[in-house]
Amino acid sequence: MSHSDLIPSLSAIVGGDAVLTGAPAADYLTDWRGRYSGEALAVVFPSGTAQVAETVRLCAANNVAIVPQGGNTSLCGGSVPLQRGAQIVLNLSRMNRVRSMDPTNYTMTVEAGCKLADVRDAAASHNRFFPLGLTATQNYCEIGGNISTNAGGINVLRYGNARDLVLGLEVVLPDGRVWNGLRSLRKDNSGYDIKHLFIGAEGTLGIITAAVLKLFPRAQAEATACVALRDPSAAVALLSHLRAACGDRIAAFEIISRSSLDLVFRHFPDAREPFAGKHRWIAVTQLTDVLQTPLDAALRDALLSFGDGIAEFDISADQVHAERWWTLRKNISEAQKREGISIKHDVSVPVSSIADFIAHADDALHKAYPGIRIVAFGHIGDGNIHYNVSLHDAGQNPAFIERHEHDVNRIVYGAVAELDGSISAEHGLGQLKRDEITHYKSALELELMRTIKQALDPNGLMNPGKVLQERAWPAPAKTVS
Amino acid sequence: MSHSDLIPSLSAIVGGDAVLTGAPAADYLTDWRGRYSGEALAVVFPSGTAQVAETVRLCAANNVAIVPQGGNTSLCGGSVPLQRGAQIVLNLSRMNRVRSMDPTNYTMTVEAGCKLADVRDAAASHNRFFPLGLTATQNYCEIGGNISTNAGGINVLRYGNARDLVLGLEVVLPDGRVWNGLRSLRKDNSGYDIKHLFIGAEGTLGIITAAVLKLFPRAQAEATACVALRDPSAAVALLSHLRAACGDRIAAFEIISRSSLDLVFRHFPDAREPFAGKHRWIAVTQLTDVLQTPLDAALRDALLSFGDGIAEFDISADQVHAERWWTLRKNISEAQKREGISIKHDVSVPVSSIADFIAHADDALHKAYPGIRIVAFGHIGDGNIHYNVSLHDAGQNPAFIERHEHDVNRIVYGAVAELDGSISAEHGLGQLKRDEITHYKSALELELMRTIKQALDPNGLMNPGKVLQERAWPAPAKTVS
Repeated sequence: MSHSDLIPSLSAIVGGDAVLTGAPAADYLTDWRGRYSGEALAVVFPSGTAQVAETVRLCAANNVAIVPQGGNTSLCGGSVPLQRGAQIVLNLSRMNRVRSMDPTNYTMTVEAGCKLADVRDAAASHNRFFPLGLTATQNYCEIGGNISTNAGGINVLRYGNARDLVLGLEVVLPDGRVWNGLRSLRKDNSGYDIKHLFIGAEGTLGIITAAVLKLFPRAQAEATACVALRDPSAAVALLSHLRAACGDRIAAFEIISRSSLDLVFRHFPDAREPFAGKHRWIAVTQLTDVLQTPLDAALRDALLSFGDGIAEFDISADQVHAERWWTLRKNISEAQKREGISIKHDVSVPVSSIADFIAHADDALHKAYPGIRIVAFGHIGDGNIHYNVSLHDAGQNPAFIERHEHDVNRIVYGAVAELDGSISAEHGLGQLKRDEITHYKSALELELMRTIKQALDPNGLMNPGKVLQERAWPAPAKTVS
Repeated sequence: MSHSDLIPSLSAIVGGDAVLTGAPAADYLTDWRGRYSGEALAVVFPSGTAQVAETVRLCAANNVAIVPQGGNTSLCGGSVPLQRGAQIVLNLSRMNRVRSMDPTNYTMTVEAGCKLADVRDAAASHNRFFPLGLTATQNYCEIGGNISTNAGGINVLRYGNARDLVLGLEVVLPDGRVWNGLRSLRKDNSGYDIKHLFIGAEGTLGIITAAVLKLFPRAQAEATACVALRDPSAAVALLSHLRAACGDRIAAFEIISRSSLDLVFRHFPDAREPFAGKHRWIAVTQLTDVLQTPLDAALRDALLSFGDGIAEFDISADQVHAERWWTLRKNISEAQKREGISIKHDVSVPVSSIADFIAHADDALHKAYPGIRIVAFGHIGDGNIHYNVSLHDAGQNPAFIERHEHDVNRIVYGAVAELDGSISAEHGLGQLKRDEITHYKSALELELMRTIKQALDPNGLMNPGKVLQERAWPAPAKTVS
């Protein structure tokens, strides 16, 4: 089958209105940040698992690669096609049904195209809580993509990553067969755990079409503290102290640097300093509980018993009041966007090494680039720091980044590697870090990854060029299907 | 190299005192329950990862298979050799160091041969809690085996299975290379998650030699309730209610049938009925909290607000008092052992289907075998029921089991399969359920399992005949190494 014949065949499977080519397809070929654009024969929108399977079989028979796509919010070029090779985008947005809800089992079964916000709402409508929360994108991103990229967010400290919230999967394999692993069991030791292969594989081993998700009780009480801290080291010690004092109630613990705050104040005029004085570091931490019990007293006791790393703090059991602190955190991404481009890093180290990481990376960067601006913030609770580098003069950044991005990455990732950290904590590898990772992962681990890819997708047709360098792909298209 | 030449080579690697053959090796060739015995060229006890790697290389070069073994407490013949083929037992008990402890990161790094009880003690000595608890065997079983079998226990409801408690692994691969995946990161999306392949693989893909474990804050308060319930359906509803009312505080929720209680009373004369009246079902549930706050009032409120499925209940915030209820639960296994053999099932279904499972299986068994005794108990919190079948007259059981085990299994596993459950919730497959599972898992999933086995262990030398049927192994031994 020639590639021009592929379109009618695709239309026959999913319907003519569910196959886009030309200009209407363009939105699906460029990524969320506008850094990656690719080419595809078509963008197809199957409305059910059988259509996904049939589409995959057609593509496999014709040696056409497939880029699985959800809300296309990847921050590393993971959900758009490459610029070369015969490939289609398979967008799962039409598969957006909640297939079943089991409040007694604390589970729900959803299709891959459900938006994350809708999943959370559906759980809430049954008095349950789905804890994965991505404030910047949850109205756009889809659960299939969240699972394929093992998404994180601010509640990982308490509830884990997307991987930890999945009990079962339905996956269309690279040859078009459907693996039904939609179990809703808390315990199942009946062979290799196949689902973990596909979670976090960024669509390179198969297409996740549905999932059984773990749900939790809804919180009935909460308290939030905003804490001015001496330095990151005090923040790490405080978190450890709070965990020992308040346990699982700690749902989030975020740190924000002065430079991050200043950016927010510049671009969000309504935002206000949390304290009368200016502090170099603040933390925002939230306790929640399903018991309708006041939490502010416990939080106050824990903070008062901590010692001298705290400059000052404020506590609120009132969500509206606390929201002005959360807004500071939530608006950092948007403030950076308005400020202009920067060299971004999404890294993690052991929680106990966060202060060392920031100190080492700061020192090395200030030495190499005096006057550089470092915007550091993120999830102390799980060791994940967003560490972004730019000049104060936004106009000079394009030239600076063009010239120095490689060296800045070497410095930051070097500090990460020294502390046994990860250069991609939550965003994945996609295209952005596919080659970079080869400097930091052992040859043996990369070989294991290729072994798995080869075993499950021997023709290399699933999301080529993401996570791993594509091989000889694309081979010449066959002429018969 | 002939097999008789292998022994001196093994001794050269691990030391002569760390290679057992003949009678001294016998204990390591028979399983915990005495149901499986195998043959091995030797039992070796490496004292470090390098020795494990060298041993594996030697075996691989000589086409000798390896049975990894920890405390040898497998309940399904997973940790002893087959009765045929050239193989050694590689026992990890000498690798029992705690390599590092990081209370701030809430992690510790341990070698595979650490006993589970010692891991828990080491964490406690740093004011941290390692939640994996297996009351029957934790003084014998070793953490490497716990991870290789994805062990469960009574706290899965709150903390997850062994899989959920592991952040990183060190694994000796089937060719003797060492994969160092000893990361202690909460977030790491830098490629395929290799560690999940080895967790729960029962040593058939590689040998886990060390692990980074997640730790938790220690509880400062607890309360336990013993609840007499109308039926299993009331137990399931009560658990759902308690989760919504008390949240993550619920650390355990166990159910015990009258038949289980009666066995305990028969074999433990000091055990006492928890209530004045006799009830058909009781549940024991425990709440814990790191806050030093009384929990009994919250537990009482939650129980009082539940409705009419509860016949009576009693609450204790006193550990010693509560222990007499826990003793009832903990002594079921030993009471069964003293009573004699039975047909045991370790199954799981969705929590919401537990009552249906018990009703369906009970009905079918009583119809097929009038007067049969069913001993049901287990972890309602995670859907895992231990469901054991025997005649009341212990003397008749050997003949009954010989004749009817296959049919009893068909009935019980049929009820499990109807409800999308698992025929091995926590004990694994080993040899015991290796063939049985082929009736309940899809051909595609079994194929995926074989694909992974073939990709990682192409010569089939890692724990052959466990999880999957061994292939043409053993091939003729090579004569040169």
